[in-house]
Amino acid sequence: MNEHNLRCLLTALQEGKCDVEQTIDRLRLLPYEDLGFAKVDHHRQLRNGFPEVIYCPGKTTQQVIEIIKRLLAFPGNIIATRAEPEIFTAIQNVIPAARYHELPRMITIERDRCLYGKGTILVISAGTADLPVAEEACLTAQLMGNTVERLYDVGVAGIHRLLDNSAHIFRAAVIIVVAGMDGALPSVVGGLVSCPVVAVPTSTGYGAAFGGLAPLLTMLNSCAAGVSVVNIDNGFGAGYCAALINRTRAPQG
Amino acid sequence: MNEHNLRCLLTALQEGKCDVEQTIDRLRLLPYEDLGFAKVDHHRQLRNGFPEVIYCPGKTTQQVIEIIKRLLAFPGNIIATRAEPEIFTAIQNVIPAARYHELPRMITIERDRCLYGKGTILVISAGTADLPVAEEACLTAQLMGNTVERLYDVGVAGIHRLLDNSAHIFRAAVIIVVAGMDGALPSVVGGLVSCPVVAVPTSTGYGAAFGGLAPLLTMLNSCAAGVSVVNIDNGFGAGYCAALINRTRAPQG
Amino acid sequence: MNEHNLRCLLTALQEGKCDVEQTIDRLRLLPYEDLGFAKVDHHRQLRNGFPEVIYCPGKTTQQVIEIIKRLLAFPGNIIATRAEPEIFTAIQNVIPAARYHELPRMITIERDRCLYGKGTILVISAGTADLPVAEEACLTAQLMGNTVERLYDVGVAGIHRLLDNSAHIFRAAVIIVVAGMDGALPSVVGGLVSCPVVAVPTSTGYGAAFGGLAPLLTMLNSCAAGVSVVNIDNGFGAGYCAALINRTRAPQG
Amino acid sequence: MNEHNLRCLLTALQEGKCDVEQTIDRLRLLPYEDLGFAKVDHHRQLRNGFPEVIYCPGKTTQQVIEIIKRLLAFPGNIIATRAEPEIFTAIQNVIPAARYHELPRMITIERDRCLYGKGTILVISAGTADLPVAEEACLTAQLMGNTVERLYDVGVAGIHRLLDNSAHIFRAAVIIVVAGMDGALPSVVGGLVSCPVVAVPTSTGYGAAFGGLAPLLTMLNSCAAGVSVVNIDNGFGAGYCAALINRTRAPQG
Amino acid sequence: MNEHNLRCLLTALQEGKCDVEQTIDRLRLLPYEDLGFAKVDHHRQLRNGFPEVIYCPGKTTQQVIEIIKRLLAFPGNIIATRAEPEIFTAIQNVIPAARYHELPRMITIERDRCLYGKGTILVISAGTADLPVAEEACLTAQLMGNTVERLYDVGVAGIHRLLDNSAHIFRAAVIIVVAGMDGALPSVVGGLVSCPVVAVPTSTGYGAAFGGLAPLLTMLNSCAAGVSVVNIDNGFGAGYCAALINRTRAPQG
Amino acid sequence: MNEHNLRCLLTALQEGKCDVEQTIDRLRLLPYEDLGFAKVDHHRQLRNGFPEVIYCPGKTTQQVIEIIKRLLAFPGNIIATRAEPEIFTAIQNVIPAARYHELPRMITIERDRCLYGKGTILVISAGTADLPVAEEACLTAQLMGNTVERLYDVGVAGIHRLLDNSAHIFRAAVIIVVAGMDGALPSVVGGLVSCPVVAVPTSTGYGAAFGGLAPLLTMLNSCAAGVSVVNIDNGFGAGYCAALINRTRAPQG
Amino acid sequence: MNEHNLRCLLTALQEGKCDVEQTIDRLRLLPYEDLGFAKVDHHRQLRNGFPEVIYCPGKTTQQVIEIIKRLLAFPGNIIATRAEPEIFTAIQNVIPAARYHELPRMITIERDRCLYGKGTILVISAGTADLPVAEEACLTAQLMGNTVERLYDVGVAGIHRLLDNSAHIFRAAVIIVVAGMDGALPSVVGGLVSCPVVAVPTSTGYGAAFGGLAPLLTMLNSCAAGVSVVNIDNGFGAGYCAALINRTRAPQG
Amino acid sequence: MNEHNLRCLLTALQEGKCDVEQTIDRLRLLPYEDLGFAKVDHHRQLRNGFPEVIYCPGKTTQQVIEIIKRLLAFPGNIIATRAEPEIFTAIQNVIPAARYHELPRMITIERDRCLYGKGTILVISAGTADLPVAEEACLTAQLMGNTVERLYDVGVAGIHRLLDNSAHIFRAAVIIVVAGMDGALPSVVGGLVSCPVVAVPTSTGYGAAFGGLAPLLTMLNSCAAGVSVVNIDNGFGAGYCAALINRTRAPQG
Repeated sequence: MNEHNLRCLLTALQEGKCDVEQTIDRLRLLPYEDLGFAKVDHHRQLRNGFPEVIYCPGKTTQQVIEIIKRLLAFPGNIIATRAEPEIFTAIQNVIPAARYHELPRMITIERDRCLYGKGTILVISAGTADLPVAEEACLTAQLMGNTVERLYDVGVAGIHRLLDNSAHIFRAAVIIVVAGMDGALPSVVGGLVSCPVVAVPTSTGYGAAFGGLAPLLTMLNSCAAGVSVVNIDNGFGAGYCAALINRTRAPQG
Repeated sequence: MNEHNLRCLLTALQEGKCDVEQTIDRLRLLPYEDLGFAKVDHHRQLRNGFPEVIYCPGKTTQQVIEIIKRLLAFPGNIIATRAEPEIFTAIQNVIPAARYHELPRMITIERDRCLYGKGTILVISAGTADLPVAEEACLTAQLMGNTVERLYDVGVAGIHRLLDNSAHIFRAAVIIVVAGMDGALPSVVGGLVSCPVVAVPTSTGYGAAFGGLAPLLTMLNSCAAGVSVVNIDNGFGAGYCAALINRTRAPQG
Repeated sequence: MNEHNLRCLLTALQEGKCDVEQTIDRLRLLPYEDLGFAKVDHHRQLRNGFPEVIYCPGKTTQQVIEIIKRLLAFPGNIIATRAEPEIFTAIQNVIPAARYHELPRMITIERDRCLYGKGTILVISAGTADLPVAEEACLTAQLMGNTVERLYDVGVAGIHRLLDNSAHIFRAAVIIVVAGMDGALPSVVGGLVSCPVVAVPTSTGYGAAFGGLAPLLTMLNSCAAGVSVVNIDNGFGAGYCAALINRTRAPQG
Repeated sequence: MNEHNLRCLLTALQEGKCDVEQTIDRLRLLPYEDLGFAKVDHHRQLRNGFPEVIYCPGKTTQQVIEIIKRLLAFPGNIIATRAEPEIFTAIQNVIPAARYHELPRMITIERDRCLYGKGTILVISAGTADLPVAEEACLTAQLMGNTVERLYDVGVAGIHRLLDNSAHIFRAAVIIVVAGMDGALPSVVGGLVSCPVVAVPTSTGYGAAFGGLAPLLTMLNSCAAGVSVVNIDNGFGAGYCAALINRTRAPQG
Repeated sequence: MNEHNLRCLLTALQEGKCDVEQTIDRLRLLPYEDLGFAKVDHHRQLRNGFPEVIYCPGKTTQQVIEIIKRLLAFPGNIIATRAEPEIFTAIQNVIPAARYHELPRMITIERDRCLYGKGTILVISAGTADLPVAEEACLTAQLMGNTVERLYDVGVAGIHRLLDNSAHIFRAAVIIVVAGMDGALPSVVGGLVSCPVVAVPTSTGYGAAFGGLAPLLTMLNSCAAGVSVVNIDNGFGAGYCAALINRTRAPQG
Repeated sequence: MNEHNLRCLLTALQEGKCDVEQTIDRLRLLPYEDLGFAKVDHHRQLRNGFPEVIYCPGKTTQQVIEIIKRLLAFPGNIIATRAEPEIFTAIQNVIPAARYHELPRMITIERDRCLYGKGTILVISAGTADLPVAEEACLTAQLMGNTVERLYDVGVAGIHRLLDNSAHIFRAAVIIVVAGMDGALPSVVGGLVSCPVVAVPTSTGYGAAFGGLAPLLTMLNSCAAGVSVVNIDNGFGAGYCAALINRTRAPQG
Repeated sequence: MNEHNLRCLLTALQEGKCDVEQTIDRLRLLPYEDLGFAKVDHHRQLRNGFPEVIYCPGKTTQQVIEIIKRLLAFPGNIIATRAEPEIFTAIQNVIPAARYHELPRMITIERDRCLYGKGTILVISAGTADLPVAEEACLTAQLMGNTVERLYDVGVAGIHRLLDNSAHIFRAAVIIVVAGMDGALPSVVGGLVSCPVVAVPTSTGYGAAFGGLAPLLTMLNSCAAGVSVVNIDNGFGAGYCAALINRTRAPQG
Repeated sequence: MNEHNLRCLLTALQEGKCDVEQTIDRLRLLPYEDLGFAKVDHHRQLRNGFPEVIYCPGKTTQQVIEIIKRLLAFPGNIIATRAEPEIFTAIQNVIPAARYHELPRMITIERDRCLYGKGTILVISAGTADLPVAEEACLTAQLMGNTVERLYDVGVAGIHRLLDNSAHIFRAAVIIVVAGMDGALPSVVGGLVSCPVVAVPTSTGYGAAFGGLAPLLTMLNSCAAGVSVVNIDNGFGAGYCAALINRTRAPQG
């Protein structure tokens, strides 16, 4: 263990077994993180209930299982994103606590049900085709200890569906807006509320949607201030951002 | 004159000066348009009060004046688009009836004030920076014989500004929506009304607006059906389309 | 029910159970749409014979069936676009009135055969590969109560094929032009006629067609005024736009 | 005045001059916003100390002055962004309280010095060329009532400059990272901290930076979760987002 | 038949059954092509030995067979491009003369073996992966009556392979250069020769080749004059262009 | 002189002053071109009357003058493209034979008026703004010894203007088509004729023309075979290509 | 053999069987490479232990086998890149010495185990999904005679993982950095070291990663000097570059 | 000074003024770089004669002067890139040793003339318009202690100009190739040599060169292995890379 090494080194200095210059030289060579940096990282996870996250594409099923096993040694929730059903089938045998969420293709292992977020995170989606991404955002925020509400299928082509739910919208502490095609919904929502809005473009749509480029540009150019954007289809990233915004900001060590 | 040539040819046949085969051979060589095609074109202008339009960039002031002079020989309104003030100064001396419109940089000569459009064309713009393009659309539609109403600065970031004017919006026969940045306004308007919406993206905005690419893609991907799109900053094109939609469609000869 | 709530509130005021200020406060909180907005929407459908439209991608077969069932409770035609044959097979058992159109992959339920459009909508396509999109436009316009004519395979590389049919073209009230590859056809058609032209780029072609980007840009830059554009492969959108342009514009309530 | 109209209508009902059904019909026609929507909007500003913001490009100096004058009638700070020095010179004569900030080209009128944000907003920039955008973010956040700290010129090419300031970084409640060229800084910062990071790409750089496209894409693809992105050079938007995240979220009326 | 109609009309005039004005009116309505335009087209084919070409994608096997059958009624070679093997299997049964070329996926029916081109067309390719496109060019040019030579696998990374064959290169009347990846070969060839060079970018390559965009841009920016470019992977187009350039230009009727 | 060196070397071998192996070693070091390659190059210019061409941007006036002076030592025409008037003013004093062409910004020195091309090159342009590029093509072809005809302002929006001139069009041996905006003209022309068509996109147009990208893609995707494309605004390249196509192809040494 | 031909020719001159002029004429026609150019090429391979490389896509299994067989006649290592397992299965039977590397899909035949590189090449990768590309780089460099070290999964989101290994990093003579998504790693590494860094973007990532465009642009805009870039996913190219940089540069013949 | 702080801390531990745990806590807070990281950085500069480089755009003249002054306190050469003449005029008065290089717009202060590079760096450019970028590369490499040779105006359109200089090319230890337009030169050079090639695309060219995108993509897709690429117009980066490759790699501390 690294801190142990550091302690040995300093004890040696204290006990006169080495001098200051030798200690400095050794410290130069000790990796930075051994001085506690990684521990801060570790503290952060314990304190905030942040789940460790595994992005599955490009990893073999065996690799995913290995990583999950190692994470199980620590407390906290575990999320695996973009997991094909085959991966879950394999994991299920080894880790019975794992659950699969078909729509967002996520595997979750929930072990910490504390609420770390102080307000409600509202996830709004424009169309039914945006649901997988919206659900990825919801699940991520939930497993990071937040109360999540959903408001789905309220695209701007029928603005009344959105306005009908203004009470919902005004209550939220953070809002995630998921939309493909024209990606216009975050601008409208951002103009209504005074809480932060995290916008997620989706690859929903065809033709000049260019795989999500159209709603991405729309959202980046939102004429409503207070809207920031994450990558196309990145429901996880939006849920994570919203959770960071929503949690009690205790001072960091 | 072409029709004259044709008449001579046919008279020669009638009078036995040439035979059928010779006439067929001659007809093959006569340009198609001489048979009346251009005339149809001409009829169209007289019948519908369409102005002749001069796109100024790439033309010398002298060329613009020459074209206007030729057009003055025919009835109907005349529009010159994207005209720098210098061009107007030069034209003014020669053609006192010409008027300059600073915002849309248009020169107009109005000689036909008949109303050819049957309903009202409503031009909606999102922000103040979109005004030059919106005004180009308004003037074009007006000089093509339409009643035009304006509803400016009602971008989606303050959706209530738009909804406040729903009476206006519901009354229109055709709506032109001009917007830059996120270009979200046509989707909202298109979702409210059941008349055709012509959307015009503008090069307003910065960064990832990419000179109007962002609102263009937004509008092409509008989740509201009934929205069609013209080129970036093409207020003239939108006004022209709206005028075509709005006028009484008499059967064409 | 919302209108019921409103009626209760106003009756309470009428009966002196609350005063004006209290009523105003309550009204502030009532969602806007409950005041009849959705009803206007509903009226619009009844009056114009617009079909309700279901975009199938991203929806499960069961979801599509549920939506169709709910729509069947109201009069009017029903369209489901981009429906895979499997979806139709499932629907057929439940809703025998449904028909499948293989080329445009559309499911239609026709219950209203009234003619709402006053002129003929002409759908022109450039090549045989554009037929699915062209047919989507035709069917959409037909189910919205329009007389539709087809003029297929008249691309600009053989301009005489188009000119041969000028009588057809001049008769139309609205023209939809569907073209991939160079997308040049709308410019030529737009230069011939004085009715509105709705252009649809298709993803037909290869290489530098870039999935329809080439014809999209061509059409947006059409040197013929009077041409507006919808999204790549969006035959439905073009049919819908054309139907809006073509119908008798009764004043809206 | 709208509320006045509403009051008249309800008084008529109360006084028996009209019945419930007539009142409902009238209410249907009254615009939604007149029912208090705009007022909620107004409340929001008063409550949160949000400045009103004027985006100058596309507005004449006279228009900017008119808008500022109207805003002066209400309390709160005023910001004008992307203001050329000429505009300020003209404003200065009329509104002596106005101040000009050369680097970010902003005009500010500070009238409310309350602190609405509960933590510190740290603005980090990669290079000296990013300073105008970074300063726009700082000023925006400050005028929205936040304590702002600056950490400039700490690009990833000299990662030790950044790590030297880790104490600073760990203390922040929200971090804005401004970077052009490779745009790599937000990924590194996002990996170090557990507070929300708002990333701003700048148009700094040349060649394949393509006016900020390169850092924009980098930031959207950040391998560190918790990073969201605003438009290229949009320092104002980043400052606004950070202020929304940082303020005490009182429940909204 | 159209010419027949024309003849009847003129005979009627000759025989006094109608007068000149009536004839003019009838002529106005007769489609242009009926006056011989299509015949010119027909002549052109007979005179030059140009094959009729069928682009298979988007056509059913049955449609392709129908078109080929109709073309068989006229003399001349027939080409079907981008034909899957399944199409050929079906055709083979009906049209035994058809041959399939696996590499370029072409079906050819050769009935005219005259040589219409006066020089040799040399087809140069950079790598083995470019062969399908190069062969498409070769076959097209051959079936249009040209002597074709091949010079394959002489990419610029081994410039000596190209220079070794300078005798070949100097002898050609037209050169087609097919290259993917960096697309540099046409610039080098164009700098060596004084005959026209038609460049064909291919979608060979990966990553930043972007499906052929990279070599396309390279070729369009060729620093050697005398190089013109066709679409990505468009071997047919290159072969067709080269054949047009190479054939004896008899005056056109 | 290189050939001289070679001769000396071989004479030394012949005279026994060195042996075969030494000669081989020397030959290895002699540059390839010294063996006559450059001479072929030189022959080509003399034989074909090709002008030497100077692309002015990025060169100082002095550099341009120096290059012209060196070229004057050889026979043949000289062209300098994209030359600002200032450059011409300076050149005029030194080289009185130079002429300036304002529209295409070209400097020409004509010393060889032989006709090397066997047919007529027809340059067609779509709009008046395309004239500078069209004229660059004309002048280039003329100075390379060709008869050039012009057919200007015949864009597809008025297809009859083009068809009116079909006699012209059918007579050409090579056609250059210059068009901006939608770039549709080459497709129509290419469909009419059976001679090679060289298409030149121009940066004429605005918005989604994206500096000529739109017509470039249109032309690359031309549905008419026989069309090849040169770079945006590259009138010189088109003229050069057309001249290569048009000249009598004598066998090359 | 070519040199043989040359020797014969010169011997004939020496022996008086031909004269100098005849020899010059013959030399003109002899391909350039026959004079030793190809031999230099050959020498280079022998001297440096560079493997011959076969890029498999677009080649049939039979072609790959043929090329390998021919290469086996010469000494040196052989690499086949992007080889599907099927190709290896076929090769294995014929060439038992071949080995398959599943991750980078490479076939190698190692016959030369000399060390040509003087320092260590360090291959760093950001994430597990980058491993195939990183391994392609490693294997390429190894078979070109270099000592290769790996440092995997040290992306910038956890900068301490990288800094922990600074000893490794400082020791390297050349560093290859493989990264997808934000592509930020080469900037950080480039800022730490003073040896050349070759950056390889990968197509890892989704959405706005656009198939590797995002990390490609990031790397090209690296704010750390000393970083050069190869094509997306081009692990082979990076390994090859690094090997060229690392080897002892003996003077070339 | 940081190391001083560390020494104090450790001495306190040695002297028993604090215990091990307190020291660990203090070490956690000490910035990483203070432990010697920056010193390594410093050593690197002294050892290798690397100049400090100032990128001028976005910096005021005063800022540039300040930075230069601070750098003058250390030994080594100083480079300021992209410096407008105005900046130099101001600097000249303060720092007489500064020299201005007009073509590459660089300011240099040369104080160390040692040769750190072991071979020759050859800078090849394609056209005269590429000279500013090529010269930036030359000067950078020279001031980093390298022998630099230039081979200019040898673009691939006249391949013999390049081959004529093969002796030059074969002698180089590292080659920088600068090219705009088609960017084909690095592929040809890379195919000739066995030393590393650093390619620099330039924004030279017009139309579809898209500001250097065309040659950038060409170079990234080079079919010659051993070519790596830097940003468009980044002559400095290429010179820096080449210098890193060329210098004697002493082991790093």
